[in-house]
Amino acid sequence: MDLNKELKKRADFFNQQLEKFLKNGQPEALYDAARHLPMAGGKRLRPCVAMLSCEAVKGDITHVIPLALALELIHNFTLVHDDIMDKSKLRRNLPAVHIKYGEPTAIIAGDLLFTKAFEAIHGTRGDPSVFKNVEFGLIDCIREICEGQQLDMEFEQRKIVSEDEYLGMILKKTAVFFMYAAESGAILGGGTKEQTQALNEYGKNLGLAFQIHDDYLDMHSDEKTLGKDIGNDIRNGKKTLIAVHSLNNTGGANKKTIEEIFGNKNASDQQIKEIYDLFKKIGSINYAKKTAESYCEKAKKQLESFPDSEAKQILLNLADYSIKREK
Amino acid sequence: MDLNKELKKRADFFNQQLEKFLKNGQPEALYDAARHLPMAGGKRLRPCVAMLSCEAVKGDITHVIPLALALELIHNFTLVHDDIMDKSKLRRNLPAVHIKYGEPTAIIAGDLLFTKAFEAIHGTRGDPSVFKNVEFGLIDCIREICEGQQLDMEFEQRKIVSEDEYLGMILKKTAVFFMYAAESGAILGGGTKEQTQALNEYGKNLGLAFQIHDDYLDMHSDEKTLGKDIGNDIRNGKKTLIAVHSLNNTGGANKKTIEEIFGNKNASDQQIKEIYDLFKKIGSINYAKKTAESYCEKAKKQLESFPDSEAKQILLNLADYSIKREK
Repeated sequence: MDLNKELKKRADFFNQQLEKFLKNGQPEALYDAARHLPMAGGKRLRPCVAMLSCEAVKGDITHVIPLALALELIHNFTLVHDDIMDKSKLRRNLPAVHIKYGEPTAIIAGDLLFTKAFEAIHGTRGDPSVFKNVEFGLIDCIREICEGQQLDMEFEQRKIVSEDEYLGMILKKTAVFFMYAAESGAILGGGTKEQTQALNEYGKNLGLAFQIHDDYLDMHSDEKTLGKDIGNDIRNGKKTLIAVHSLNNTGGANKKTIEEIFGNKNASDQQIKEIYDLFKKIGSINYAKKTAESYCEKAKKQLESFPDSEAKQILLNLADYSIKREK
Repeated sequence: MDLNKELKKRADFFNQQLEKFLKNGQPEALYDAARHLPMAGGKRLRPCVAMLSCEAVKGDITHVIPLALALELIHNFTLVHDDIMDKSKLRRNLPAVHIKYGEPTAIIAGDLLFTKAFEAIHGTRGDPSVFKNVEFGLIDCIREICEGQQLDMEFEQRKIVSEDEYLGMILKKTAVFFMYAAESGAILGGGTKEQTQALNEYGKNLGLAFQIHDDYLDMHSDEKTLGKDIGNDIRNGKKTLIAVHSLNNTGGANKKTIEEIFGNKNASDQQIKEIYDLFKKIGSINYAKKTAESYCEKAKKQLESFPDSEAKQILLNLADYSIKREK
């Protein structure tokens, strides 16, 4: 099975729906700004997870389109606002929304995408009380994403963060949304309570694996490419699992060196290299890799009780992909 | 009847519910930032309109509490984000959220209030399909508020704006939310279709009167107090009804003078005075006053078919207040 081909098939179907849903509007600049990121493509992972979850319980995929749209719109709303907060200039190889349209319009464009997500999920057919529950789950997710983003920012300012705190943060910031996507896809597909619960756990572990692998990817690099990402993360004191593990598992001179350089905006390239070598020596880079792998295994285990199907196989491969992808 | 006393009675009841609903949470800084404005008081006009509308159709006021909470939270979310966009430093005599907590946390705090508004409205009891319709109305409102805010910003950059464009902008930015508050209060109170429609029109006209009187208040001032507000609005080229009317109803030398000074960030106090005198001479200040009065009359007319009640009387007085208040 070709995972990319299967994901692309679903993403293409999703993109048609998104194109129909997120039309131009007035004032033009606002709608252009709101459409800038969603129309720039991307893997549509969250919509794909919802669709595959629905398929895995033999549901009708068209029932999850409103949910899938909401997932992608909320994801994009958070990207627009996060890029303002982080002062990021680029996103998906394009100028960030606030760079292209100015910060005021970018703030409103994010708010509009937030609104459009709720408009989208209102297209859910069937029992209004099922809709109400599924929509409430979305609201709860957004609250957790807000809390997670705040924690992520706060952690950068802190000297030390425990591994549990780190995991709690990425759970909120990234994993709950995959958890929700998988669970709600199963609910709207008419899955049993057991299936829905299993897919909830699948999504959660997939999200954790995905985020930790992201941290790992930014750090795992040979000297030649030891470039901007690693330097930025170290200079900003970004509390990735690698950094958290190093800070919590070393002492003496090494700890002092990390504390001096990590989070120092003016660290030299030579100092960055020193920290990178220390992270490696302490075993933190390998530890992050192993941790991501263990979440991947947990995710896959949840699918054991499902009958064989194409969707199940894609979800299994997606879990493997989450820790093997190289960008 | 003492309008202030009646509004305060309802605001006090509402505040108890808000205090219970918008509790502290983690991360603390985020929840403190989110609570900063809602807990700073205010007239709670939108919740009051919803409650009074419910009372006017003999509904049970407790049924509109979730709606009232959502209205106030959405209103506050827009204030938090608007203050960032407008670079406002003060709100309700307190530092704006982004001044006190920094811009990144203020952006998330606004997003969190947005989320909490939907959490609040989910507390609506009764038929889930009625809930679904009422909630969809809220979503539609927020979309219009976003569009209205963008238009307001764009109008400042434009040389000329027609009166229709101005009215369309304040309809979206201010009036639709009052319209929605009044209409939904009636729906949840069990009002008839005719009552609901009448209260929808009441809210719309109240909102228009309110916003135009706001513009008028900022401009109507004797020379002694001809101070900061007027100067700022003129220097920023803010398209109030007064400015729009003047720009569209004058020619020759007067028009040239306005075009030269209006929107000029470096205009002198003497030039501000000149524009103010021109606005007066052209009759625009009086025109705005008359226009607000006519919307007030239209609002009151909608209530004619309602049986006499305390709530009806308060709504009538509230319409008068909207064009008589002095701050």
